[in-house]
Amino acid sequence: MTQYFTFDSIQLESGEKFGPVKIAYETYGVLDSERTNAILIVHALSGDAHAAGVDKSDETPGWWDSMIGPNKAFDTNKYFVICSNVFGGCKGSTGPLSINPETGKPYALDFPLISIGDMVECQKRLIEHLGIDTLLTVAGGSMGGMQVLSWLTRYPNRVKSVIPIATAIRHSPQQIAFHEVGRQAIMADPHWKSGNYYDGLHPTKGLAVARMIGHITYMSDASMTEKFGRQRKKSTEPFKFTADFQVEGYLRYRGDNFVKRFDANSYLYITKAMDNFDASDGKPLQESLRGVKTKLLVIAFKSDWLYPAYQSKEIVRACKLAGLDATYCEIDSTCGHDAFLLEVGEETYLITHFLKRVFHEYEVTGNYEI
Amino acid sequence: MTQYFTFDSIQLESGEKFGPVKIAYETYGVLDSERTNAILIVHALSGDAHAAGVDKSDETPGWWDSMIGPNKAFDTNKYFVICSNVFGGCKGSTGPLSINPETGKPYALDFPLISIGDMVECQKRLIEHLGIDTLLTVAGGSMGGMQVLSWLTRYPNRVKSVIPIATAIRHSPQQIAFHEVGRQAIMADPHWKSGNYYDGLHPTKGLAVARMIGHITYMSDASMTEKFGRQRKKSTEPFKFTADFQVEGYLRYRGDNFVKRFDANSYLYITKAMDNFDASDGKPLQESLRGVKTKLLVIAFKSDWLYPAYQSKEIVRACKLAGLDATYCEIDSTCGHDAFLLEVGEETYLITHFLKRVFHEYEVTGNYEI
Repeated sequence: MTQYFTFDSIQLESGEKFGPVKIAYETYGVLDSERTNAILIVHALSGDAHAAGVDKSDETPGWWDSMIGPNKAFDTNKYFVICSNVFGGCKGSTGPLSINPETGKPYALDFPLISIGDMVECQKRLIEHLGIDTLLTVAGGSMGGMQVLSWLTRYPNRVKSVIPIATAIRHSPQQIAFHEVGRQAIMADPHWKSGNYYDGLHPTKGLAVARMIGHITYMSDASMTEKFGRQRKKSTEPFKFTADFQVEGYLRYRGDNFVKRFDANSYLYITKAMDNFDASDGKPLQESLRGVKTKLLVIAFKSDWLYPAYQSKEIVRACKLAGLDATYCEIDSTCGHDAFLLEVGEETYLITHFLKRVFHEYEVTGNYEI
Repeated sequence: MTQYFTFDSIQLESGEKFGPVKIAYETYGVLDSERTNAILIVHALSGDAHAAGVDKSDETPGWWDSMIGPNKAFDTNKYFVICSNVFGGCKGSTGPLSINPETGKPYALDFPLISIGDMVECQKRLIEHLGIDTLLTVAGGSMGGMQVLSWLTRYPNRVKSVIPIATAIRHSPQQIAFHEVGRQAIMADPHWKSGNYYDGLHPTKGLAVARMIGHITYMSDASMTEKFGRQRKKSTEPFKFTADFQVEGYLRYRGDNFVKRFDANSYLYITKAMDNFDASDGKPLQESLRGVKTKLLVIAFKSDWLYPAYQSKEIVRACKLAGLDATYCEIDSTCGHDAFLLEVGEETYLITHFLKRVFHEYEVTGNYEI
């Protein structure tokens, strides 16, 4: 069940002070008396706080339900799992569609420019609110992986381990470019109106195009060929530029569905936060990791061309240079970037064993830094 | 200098009869008395008839001027080189923006659905008009390569050799998907008006987004990193969602420029022709090549992820299975799909030697099929 935590204000990375902030979150499992079994799950671009279980209102399973639950990778019989909607999002946490108390209207583009670090700052407030000092792990893929790296560099003493999956220290120009085209598609939609669309039609066509671009980059050449080939839709429509290949119909369907559940301004703010993210402020990451004792499990996927494996290897390399205990695994998947949501079998093995080791050391020594 | 050739009508691959058709073309060099030295150059999605030399009116060099001219790969001291704007295009040949003689207005979406084969049919009419029976070679990259393959399967006896570059027998779903998102961006633009925009504002924003998507796919991860890195533009604008990374500014610039010189409806028709193209109508290509004597030089580029090298290897494999003389070369370029326009050095060597051999055999035997 989604719960809410509100706090007065946050000092943003930009220097600006902003508040109030509401954070939507869910928890699964039970926090042990020593408070050593807490795990934070962080979501990707379009995720939300509902990571696991089935929502009673709409029967939707959580976005990572395959990985979180009793006897699953993040075993809720053993661990207390927390997931929150990111600051700047549109699934219950404060974002551009939230009401600005000063005007009584949605912030729209008066919402401040936010960073991945600001999202993490809000998560830190949340876990403190839950009475947790130190997390056993923080885990997530894609933009989730960026939050993971931000936890690692900002609060290394608050995380015993981290699991960045299919992510990067910073975006390449190609990654920025795909986001920028999506933003351009949204801002080209006349209903966008410089962000002031909340009392009228929303820029659904632009947002759908942005999402379609995203979906292409989340799949691989091989997975698209396997899923769609060159199959054509059976259609009675007179053909001109209707979707006739199945892949076209799929993209239109995914695009059209997305606009029902996502806010275009959030899309702008969150993608910009990802593009601006640099886990190490332009410096080599190893310089930000000196003396850090946090353990890492870094996972990448062979067919992921949006966050290619070389970007994960750069994380591992920096960790090794800084003397951290980092394990790297490249899963041989054809699912592209989506693999982090789909390759449940191998991810479960890797994460289960990794967490067992980290949790055991933590329980035995109370502090494995010794 | 661009010239024009008009003919009454064409039987389209769809079965429909369409006319009149005007084809814009340029020629370079001199046709020899035996008419054995004619080469047809075919252009990619946004190309035109102006392939070489410098246009006197606007001083624009031809789009493949680096490859066509005296002592260049397509040596105009030896060869007679022809290039025409494709049927369906917007650079002088009949296309959706042409005036429908029955209505006195642009065809817009009354223009019939066209195919790569229809483009080739118009090119065949053109070379017949020029008094040429057999071409020494047909060469082109990307969509040009599709026309090359269409010449090979439709008129193998009219082409002594062909040079398909960075192309495919048919589009994969990923290639279709990138095109489809571009089409969606155009059709989402309220100025598109189901194609009837010629007397008002054009769907420039949608077309710019489509072109931006294209540009990302034409470059490689490596070439973008080399060209832009994470450099930011110097800007005095108050920042929100202005282009601040250089790569963003570049894409906006390329998108905005493109809309000045290209027609959105042509973009729809031509991309659809590419997506529908199948050099072998769904059959294995080798079945369409039995008994064919045409020689091939197939060129691919290592970092081209839009038309990956495996697609060129599929062409070569089919040729080998059908007993054709086919040479394959994968150029080790970091330029992505754009490499076919940029890797002038290696392409020049490969093409010069290939043409010398083909031309010599043709001159000596009059018909190298003996």
